[in-house]
Amino acid sequence: MGSWRLTATEALNKIKAQELTTEQYASSLLARIKERDGDIGAWVHIDPNTVLEQARALDKVPLDKRGPLHGLPVAVKDVIYTKGKTTTTEFAATMVGTQTRNPHNVLRTPGGSSSGSAAAVADFQIPVSLGTQTGGSIVRPASFNGIYGFKPTWNAITREGQKVSSLTLDTLGFFARSVDDFEPLADTFALHDDDVSTFTDIKSARFAVCKTAQWKYAGEGTQAAMAKAADLLKDHGAQVEDVSLGPEFDSMAEWHRIINRSEGRSSFLPEYLSSKEQMNKSIAGFIEDKLSRKEQLEAYDGIAALRPRFDAIASQYTAFIVPSVPDEAPTGLESTGNLIFNGTWTALHVPVMNVPGFRGPNDMPVGISVVVPRFQDRHLLKVSKALGQVFEAEGGWNQGSTRAE
Amino acid sequence: MGSWRLTATEALNKIKAQELTTEQYASSLLARIKERDGDIGAWVHIDPNTVLEQARALDKVPLDKRGPLHGLPVAVKDVIYTKGKTTTTEFAATMVGTQTRNPHNVLRTPGGSSSGSAAAVADFQIPVSLGTQTGGSIVRPASFNGIYGFKPTWNAITREGQKVSSLTLDTLGFFARSVDDFEPLADTFALHDDDVSTFTDIKSARFAVCKTAQWKYAGEGTQAAMAKAADLLKDHGAQVEDVSLGPEFDSMAEWHRIINRSEGRSSFLPEYLSSKEQMNKSIAGFIEDKLSRKEQLEAYDGIAALRPRFDAIASQYTAFIVPSVPDEAPTGLESTGNLIFNGTWTALHVPVMNVPGFRGPNDMPVGISVVVPRFQDRHLLKVSKALGQVFEAEGGWNQGSTRAE
Repeated sequence: MGSWRLTATEALNKIKAQELTTEQYASSLLARIKERDGDIGAWVHIDPNTVLEQARALDKVPLDKRGPLHGLPVAVKDVIYTKGKTTTTEFAATMVGTQTRNPHNVLRTPGGSSSGSAAAVADFQIPVSLGTQTGGSIVRPASFNGIYGFKPTWNAITREGQKVSSLTLDTLGFFARSVDDFEPLADTFALHDDDVSTFTDIKSARFAVCKTAQWKYAGEGTQAAMAKAADLLKDHGAQVEDVSLGPEFDSMAEWHRIINRSEGRSSFLPEYLSSKEQMNKSIAGFIEDKLSRKEQLEAYDGIAALRPRFDAIASQYTAFIVPSVPDEAPTGLESTGNLIFNGTWTALHVPVMNVPGFRGPNDMPVGISVVVPRFQDRHLLKVSKALGQVFEAEGGWNQGSTRAE
Repeated sequence: MGSWRLTATEALNKIKAQELTTEQYASSLLARIKERDGDIGAWVHIDPNTVLEQARALDKVPLDKRGPLHGLPVAVKDVIYTKGKTTTTEFAATMVGTQTRNPHNVLRTPGGSSSGSAAAVADFQIPVSLGTQTGGSIVRPASFNGIYGFKPTWNAITREGQKVSSLTLDTLGFFARSVDDFEPLADTFALHDDDVSTFTDIKSARFAVCKTAQWKYAGEGTQAAMAKAADLLKDHGAQVEDVSLGPEFDSMAEWHRIINRSEGRSSFLPEYLSSKEQMNKSIAGFIEDKLSRKEQLEAYDGIAALRPRFDAIASQYTAFIVPSVPDEAPTGLESTGNLIFNGTWTALHVPVMNVPGFRGPNDMPVGISVVVPRFQDRHLLKVSKALGQVFEAEGGWNQGSTRAE
């Protein structure tokens, strides 16, 4: 088996045990990328010689001088200032598609705006990648590609070096094929909960299943995934309750939209002034539309008041289970899909994990979102790992499911 | 008279009227900088040849192709990614002094962290400059240098390209020797109030004089400036009321401190991990200290709840008048002074202007801060212009006051 199939944790362990060199691992991934890039188109820039040169240099570092991520290649979304990058939509701020294709069906979108980062992980071209979420740009492509997508608490990780779209919403996060792979990343970025999670197993847990005010947008795939998730959790002995957040949360999706657009007005003004004609119309619209500052302030203050409210509600449960997407990845590459189920959680600043494990009517993956209060990122990892094991084993979809290769 | 003495507005008008070329103007400023830089030390990088080359290129642009800021040199604080820069403290995140000196007395600090940007404007080396404020880094040096310092509403101007210190607090702003000079900048950065300000003159205005919960830190210079400001406003026919914000605002300064430190923990983690030994101890302290996430959330949510409360209170007045600083610029360059009077307004996201016009016991300038509700930036400019005219004429200090030259 090629080492490109390894998860990050498996690869790091083999490198540590000197069963695999960084050069061998990088070569295997580069060969996989070469074979698949024509079909998937996940990369905007990759320089194999530089990668191999760096890999050889890393292999020369003595074992006792190596950091915890030594030898781990990470793909970086193209709104972050660096080299070796995966595709995104324009400024990660539109739903207009890139040329990246879904590895499970190349006629379908991988989602966006972290299109390439998600597709490359799902297609075994890279073990982990960096994405960003302002609306649903980590959770949505993770669901569409059948992988884990982790959006940490807002501002728990610096957004330095990331193109600004919306300060209040932009969040850096990660994709992987295993929850374990987020652990060394969470260590490196110093994600610490105040209190160590007391979660032990699903049978002693209590979950809130929340269909949200957007449930009317849920298609067959998501309806089935939510029902199956609840059934599996009950089967495994968990307490499962249907929970509604109540009418005070009804404006969240609209407030998210207003903040995204009104902060985009300042963020993209320089590009608008210098090169409006090269700009996608939907981004130019941020600057041209007539949202008032009053609406912006109502959205800021309304959401800010609900953040501690949600934390208080969610802290009565092990986690909230909510939809990740309306349905499977839509066909066509024109649109990267709908963020209607993601805006609320992004604006509440809470950590979210897309957990895969379900299969839609067209044999494409469907995930659900696990949500916990702010700054309980490590708790989220622990719970998501347990949920992923159950869902991938019994939900109808797993990392070994047939894919287009 | 050298054209280096002109305000931005005066220079722009002369360039527009073809009474002054950009090259002549730039040459005059460069000569002033050459003469004064040994004493003041405001610049970390300036390349006269590049400046003159650009100036000559600008002079060749036909009149009908020129933008509103054509020919205006702007100094840029060294936490913004560009060339031709003024000094700052380390990452603009410490109070440890730079080598920049106060133009009014070279034995005193110009304040910080926008040290060079403020000193260069006060010393006629540049008409306007960019600064940033996370605590009091625009208002404090403006007061210490006897100039206007304008901190707009948070996020009204993109912070793209600025080193992140605290996302919730960092704000880009400006220094100038005349309020008029902020108008073309406000136009360019699209600062628009929802409603056009109804302010006409001081005699029909109503001011809240608020000594704040930090009044015990006010020294002789600030006590006298606040009293004189209130007297002058009354003399000119304004309604002036002493206003206390009440005990619910008492935690603001502490919450500001907590947010600054806990957000600094994520912002400076990469530098800490890669080069802790080169880092100032006060910044390393952000990463090492034991502030809990609970304290961080209480500060976020507490401040967020007070933002609309302050807006509602302040909208009953033309503006709030509050202290800018404890007193005149302290002697010595070791510390850039105390931000105790600024954190509250920065954290409330409201626009603030330092208006000079008063003189401390050691003949140094002292300013006061004018504060209005969020997104009333243009209203703030209008009111500050009227206040500046009165204070500079009758307060004891003006732009023509004796300085070290």
